[in-house]
Amino acid sequence: MQYANLPTDPAADERPLAAGVVGASGYAGQELVRILAGHPRMRAAVLQARSDGFEPIGAEGLAGCDVVFLALPHGESRALGEELLERGAQVVDLGSDFRVDGWTYGLPELHRDAVRVARAVANPGCYATAAILGVAPLAAAGLVDGPVHLDGKSGVTGAGRTPSEKTHLPEIHGGITPYAVTGHRHLGEIEQELGRLAGSARPATFVPHLLPTSRGLLVTAHVRLVQPLDQADLDDLYAARYADEPFVRFGGLPAPQRLAGSNACWINAWADERTGTVLVEAALDNLVKGAAGQAIQNANIMLGVEETAGLTAQGLWP
Amino acid sequence: MQYANLPTDPAADERPLAAGVVGASGYAGQELVRILAGHPRMRAAVLQARSDGFEPIGAEGLAGCDVVFLALPHGESRALGEELLERGAQVVDLGSDFRVDGWTYGLPELHRDAVRVARAVANPGCYATAAILGVAPLAAAGLVDGPVHLDGKSGVTGAGRTPSEKTHLPEIHGGITPYAVTGHRHLGEIEQELGRLAGSARPATFVPHLLPTSRGLLVTAHVRLVQPLDQADLDDLYAARYADEPFVRFGGLPAPQRLAGSNACWINAWADERTGTVLVEAALDNLVKGAAGQAIQNANIMLGVEETAGLTAQGLWP
Amino acid sequence: MQYANLPTDPAADERPLAAGVVGASGYAGQELVRILAGHPRMRAAVLQARSDGFEPIGAEGLAGCDVVFLALPHGESRALGEELLERGAQVVDLGSDFRVDGWTYGLPELHRDAVRVARAVANPGCYATAAILGVAPLAAAGLVDGPVHLDGKSGVTGAGRTPSEKTHLPEIHGGITPYAVTGHRHLGEIEQELGRLAGSARPATFVPHLLPTSRGLLVTAHVRLVQPLDQADLDDLYAARYADEPFVRFGGLPAPQRLAGSNACWINAWADERTGTVLVEAALDNLVKGAAGQAIQNANIMLGVEETAGLTAQGLWP
Amino acid sequence: MQYANLPTDPAADERPLAAGVVGASGYAGQELVRILAGHPRMRAAVLQARSDGFEPIGAEGLAGCDVVFLALPHGESRALGEELLERGAQVVDLGSDFRVDGWTYGLPELHRDAVRVARAVANPGCYATAAILGVAPLAAAGLVDGPVHLDGKSGVTGAGRTPSEKTHLPEIHGGITPYAVTGHRHLGEIEQELGRLAGSARPATFVPHLLPTSRGLLVTAHVRLVQPLDQADLDDLYAARYADEPFVRFGGLPAPQRLAGSNACWINAWADERTGTVLVEAALDNLVKGAAGQAIQNANIMLGVEETAGLTAQGLWP
Repeated sequence: MQYANLPTDPAADERPLAAGVVGASGYAGQELVRILAGHPRMRAAVLQARSDGFEPIGAEGLAGCDVVFLALPHGESRALGEELLERGAQVVDLGSDFRVDGWTYGLPELHRDAVRVARAVANPGCYATAAILGVAPLAAAGLVDGPVHLDGKSGVTGAGRTPSEKTHLPEIHGGITPYAVTGHRHLGEIEQELGRLAGSARPATFVPHLLPTSRGLLVTAHVRLVQPLDQADLDDLYAARYADEPFVRFGGLPAPQRLAGSNACWINAWADERTGTVLVEAALDNLVKGAAGQAIQNANIMLGVEETAGLTAQGLWP
Repeated sequence: MQYANLPTDPAADERPLAAGVVGASGYAGQELVRILAGHPRMRAAVLQARSDGFEPIGAEGLAGCDVVFLALPHGESRALGEELLERGAQVVDLGSDFRVDGWTYGLPELHRDAVRVARAVANPGCYATAAILGVAPLAAAGLVDGPVHLDGKSGVTGAGRTPSEKTHLPEIHGGITPYAVTGHRHLGEIEQELGRLAGSARPATFVPHLLPTSRGLLVTAHVRLVQPLDQADLDDLYAARYADEPFVRFGGLPAPQRLAGSNACWINAWADERTGTVLVEAALDNLVKGAAGQAIQNANIMLGVEETAGLTAQGLWP
Repeated sequence: MQYANLPTDPAADERPLAAGVVGASGYAGQELVRILAGHPRMRAAVLQARSDGFEPIGAEGLAGCDVVFLALPHGESRALGEELLERGAQVVDLGSDFRVDGWTYGLPELHRDAVRVARAVANPGCYATAAILGVAPLAAAGLVDGPVHLDGKSGVTGAGRTPSEKTHLPEIHGGITPYAVTGHRHLGEIEQELGRLAGSARPATFVPHLLPTSRGLLVTAHVRLVQPLDQADLDDLYAARYADEPFVRFGGLPAPQRLAGSNACWINAWADERTGTVLVEAALDNLVKGAAGQAIQNANIMLGVEETAGLTAQGLWP
Repeated sequence: MQYANLPTDPAADERPLAAGVVGASGYAGQELVRILAGHPRMRAAVLQARSDGFEPIGAEGLAGCDVVFLALPHGESRALGEELLERGAQVVDLGSDFRVDGWTYGLPELHRDAVRVARAVANPGCYATAAILGVAPLAAAGLVDGPVHLDGKSGVTGAGRTPSEKTHLPEIHGGITPYAVTGHRHLGEIEQELGRLAGSARPATFVPHLLPTSRGLLVTAHVRLVQPLDQADLDDLYAARYADEPFVRFGGLPAPQRLAGSNACWINAWADERTGTVLVEAALDNLVKGAAGQAIQNANIMLGVEETAGLTAQGLWP
C-alpha cells in the first residue's frame, strides 16, 4: 500500500498515545471508547461528557492528550474545537461544524496526505462517506452528467442517543421512513467533495430514510454518464482507484448488516448501458467507518501510527 | 368520483359473487382469502392450491366462479389463464405472465375504463404499482427528462412463501440488501406504463432492496424535468390527478408501516428546484395494493360492484 | 353461546351509539378510534386529548356519550372517572387505577354477567388478560400448587407513545430486554383474579420483557399441579372452559404476530407429566384484546349490542 | 483468577497452534473462523465442509491439527469424532452427540479441571450454557425446591443456516414464537448438570421461543427455594461463585443485544421473598459463549494457552 511505506515517527512506536474523548456518553463517543479498548497504541485517557460518571467538558482537562476526539451533537463543537487548536492540540471533530469550507476533510481515501500533516480534521458524515466513496471514481474521471441521484438508508443510531417521537420504535418498526427529503445536513459536504473531484460544481439529490435497525447504512447512487462505459471498464476504474485501500471492499452485493463493527466501506457499481447510467451501492457501519472508526483512522494517520491500527475487526455477521 | 356515478348491474346487488382463488396457500392467496372474508358481496367459494387442505388446481373446479384470481408463482399462470378464458371465466392474474403486451393492465387509477369491460386482467407488480402511480402525473404531463431513477425497498413477503438462503432471517436482519440491481422483473411493466403515459419510450433504472420486515414497500423516484416546476405547481399536478382516487393519498412522509392491511398507495412529491429534479416517495402494502387488494379492486370494477367494497380497512398502525 | 341468546335492548338496534375517547392521541386511544371506524353500531363521537387537534379533556364535553373510554396514562383516570360516574355516564377505564379492588374487572370471559350490568368497568392490563385467561381453567379447577410462574414478552407499544431511553430502538433492537423483574404493575390484578377463581390467595412470579417489535404479547406460564393431569384431560378442561368464547382460540403454537389487529387471545396448554407441571402459552395483540378491543368488547356488553360487533377482524398476517 | 496461576506448557508459547474446523460453512463454523482470525496463538489451518470452496470432510485432512472443532449438524459428529480420537486428535464437538453421558462436558465454569486434561470435549448447547450458569449457584447450594422452570428466547441463528418454513422471516417477524414446548434437545444436558451440582436429580421445564432477531439468547429461570433467602445473601452466593470467572458478568438487567460478539454470560438474580422464589436472567451470544467462543475457550484450556486468548472482544452495542 502506498501509505504503508511511508516513514513513521520512530518515537511513536515506543510510548502509548493518549486520546481524549469529548461526548463519551453518546453512541459515537462510546464507540470510540470501545474501539480504543482494542487499539495497540492508543488509549482513551480522558472521557468527558455532560452525563454523570464522566469528567466535565473543557479544554483544560484535555491538556495531556495526543489527540482529542470531539463527539458532540451537531453544532456544538465550534468553540471547544477552536480553543483546543489554540492550545496546540490535535483534534478530530466528528460533528458537522467544520466539514464545509473548514478543517481538513478527513476522508483518508481522498485526502490522506492532507490528513497526515493536519492538526485539525473534520471527520465526514456517515452518509457522506458512503456517497463520496461510492461516486468518487466516476466524478474524478469526469464521467458524471448532471446531478448525482442519491438514496440513503440508515439505522436509528445515526440519529443519536436521544430518543424522539420520530425515531420511537413503534413509529418506524416494520417499514422504512423517509425524512429531510430535499435538505439533509450531509448534502453540502457531498457536493463539496464531488465538486472538488470533478473540477466543477457537482449537484446532487439525496433522499435519506430510516431503517428499522440499529446500526448500518447504505447509499444507492444513480449516476448518468457523459459517455458510454461498459462493465469491464467500470470495474477497472473502481479497482484501480481502490486496489490499495485497506478499508474499501469492491464487488458483490454490499449489505451493511455484514459490516457491523468493521471499518470497511463496501462498494459495487453496475453499468446500465441501456440507460447510460451507472448504479452504485456503498455500505458501511455508520458508527465505525461512518464515525468512530474513521476518526481513529484519521488519528492514526495524524499521529504516524499504522493506519489500520485498532481497526482490523471483521464485520460481526450474522 | 367519476367511476362512482356509473350504472352498476342491478342484479349484482342481489346475490353473492363467487370467487375462485388459485394458489390459496401462498402469501398473496391467503391475503385474498383474508380480504374476501370481510367483503360485503364477494366470497371465496373455491380455494385451490398444491398444498394439502385445498382443492387441486384446475379449470373444472372453477366453473361456477364469477371471477377467478390466479395467485401462482411467476411464470405458472399462462396455461390455466388461457384455458379459463376459453371457458368464459373472468380472470385476474396476480403473476407477471400477462402484464407486458398481454391482458388489460389492471392499474385502475390509469385503466379503470378498460378494466370495467375486461374479462382478463393482469394485476400489476407491487413495485410497479408504486413506481407508476408515483411518477404518472409527471410522465403524463410530458415533464420527464431522460430515464427515471427508481429505488425500491420491500419486505420479505414480496419474495413469497418459499424460504431461501437469500431471504433467511440472519442474512437480512439488521440491515438492507440490494438485489437484481439492473434487471428486476417489474422494470418492463414500469417502462411500458410510463411510456404509454408519456407518449414515447420512458426508460428507467430500478434498484430493489430487501428490508428486514415482513410486508410493506416504498419506491423513491428521482425524476429530472424538461422544464422548471415549483412546489405549488407540483402539488397541483398531483392533487388534480388523484383528487378523486379512493386509494391514493397525497402528502406527508409516506411510510409503508402505516399502511399494513390498507389498499392505499401513499404518495408525496418534492420539487428540488436547485437540481431541476422532482423527488417522489410512494408507499403501499405489497400484499394489498401491491397484490391481493388491487386484485379485488379490479374484480369489483369488472363485476360492477362498488370499487372500494371489502377494501376500506385503515392501515394497522402502530 | 350463552350470552348470544340473551335478549338485547331492541332500541339499541336502531340508533348509533356515541362513544367518547379520552386520551385519543395515545396508542390505545387511536386504536379505539381505528376500531370504532369499522364498528356497525358505535362511533367515536368525542375525541379528547392534551395534544393539538383534539378537544380538551373534561367531563362536560362527554355529556352526550353513551359510553366513555378513558385511555389515559396509568394513574391519571381517577378524578375524571369518578366525576363521570357521578354525572351518570357509563365508563370503561383502560388504565390501572380501578382494577384492583375497584370497578368491575372487565374480563368478559370471567365476568360477563357483571359487566352487563356495570356502569363502571376497569379494562384489564394487557399482560394480565393473557396471564389470567391462560391459567384460569387450572385455577378454577383447584389444580394450582404454589405460585404460578409467569414470563411475559411484549412489543414496545405496551410502554406507550412517549419515547424514553429504555425503549429507544438501539437499546432494544436485536435482542430482548427484561424489566420490572419482581414488581410489575399487572401482578396485583393477576393475583386478584387467580385468587378469586381458586378460592384462596394465588401468588405469582412475573418477569416481563420488551421485544424488539411494535405490538403483540405472549405470556408463558409454568404451573405446578396438586395432582397429575394427562394431556387429554387438560385439553378437555380448556376446551370446556372456552368452547363458547368468541375471542379465545385454543391449540397450536400461539404466536402474537398472527393476531395483529385481532381481538383474540390464543392459548394452548401442555401437560408435562414428567415434572407434574402444565405449560401454557397465551398470545394476544396488546393494543386490541390487551386494550382497545377488549374495551369495546366490554362496551358492547354494557350497551346490549352484539359482543363481537366491530371486533371480527382476523389477525393481519404475515 | 485460580486458573490463571496454573503452569502452562512453555513450548506452547512459542509456536502457532493449528485448528481444524469441520463444518466451516455453517454459522458456528464461520464464527469459529472469525474468532480465530483474531486469536493470538491459534489459527484456522484446515477448513472442511460439504460446500464448495472448502476441503472435503474427513479425518485424514485433519492429521496435523492441534485441535479439531466439529461444527456439524446435530447427530452427525459421532463417527468422525470417534475416529479422530482413535487417531490421537484433541477434539471439541459443538454438536449434541456427546453431551449427555459422553465426553467431558465443556462448561469451563463448572468443569475447568476436567477440560484441562481432556482430549474430547462436548461443547454445551447455547440454551444449556445460559440455563446452567444461571441456576448453578442455587443448585450447588442445595436450595432448589422441585423442578426448575426455564423460559428460553433465542435469535434465529440458533436454528442454523438452513432456511425452513418455521424460521422464514415473515413467519416470525413482529412477534415471538414458541416451539418444542415440552421436549427441547438441551433439556437432557441441563438436567444432567443441575443434578450433578445438586447431588440428586433436578428436573426442569423448559419452553424455548424464537425471537425475530439474528443472534442473542436469554434464559429466564423461576426457581422455588427450599428455604428463604434474602437479596443480600443471594448476591453473595452469586458473587462468590463467579467473582473469578472472566466470562461471567453479574448484575443489572441482562440483555443479549449488548453481548454481540462477546464470550460473556451476563447473569442477574432477584430474591422474590413474597413467593419464596428466585428469578434469574442469563444472557449470552448464542454463536459465541453459546457455541464458537466457548469452544475456543475450551481449546485454550486444553492446549494450555491463556483461557481468554482471542475472546476479549466487548459486545458490539448498540
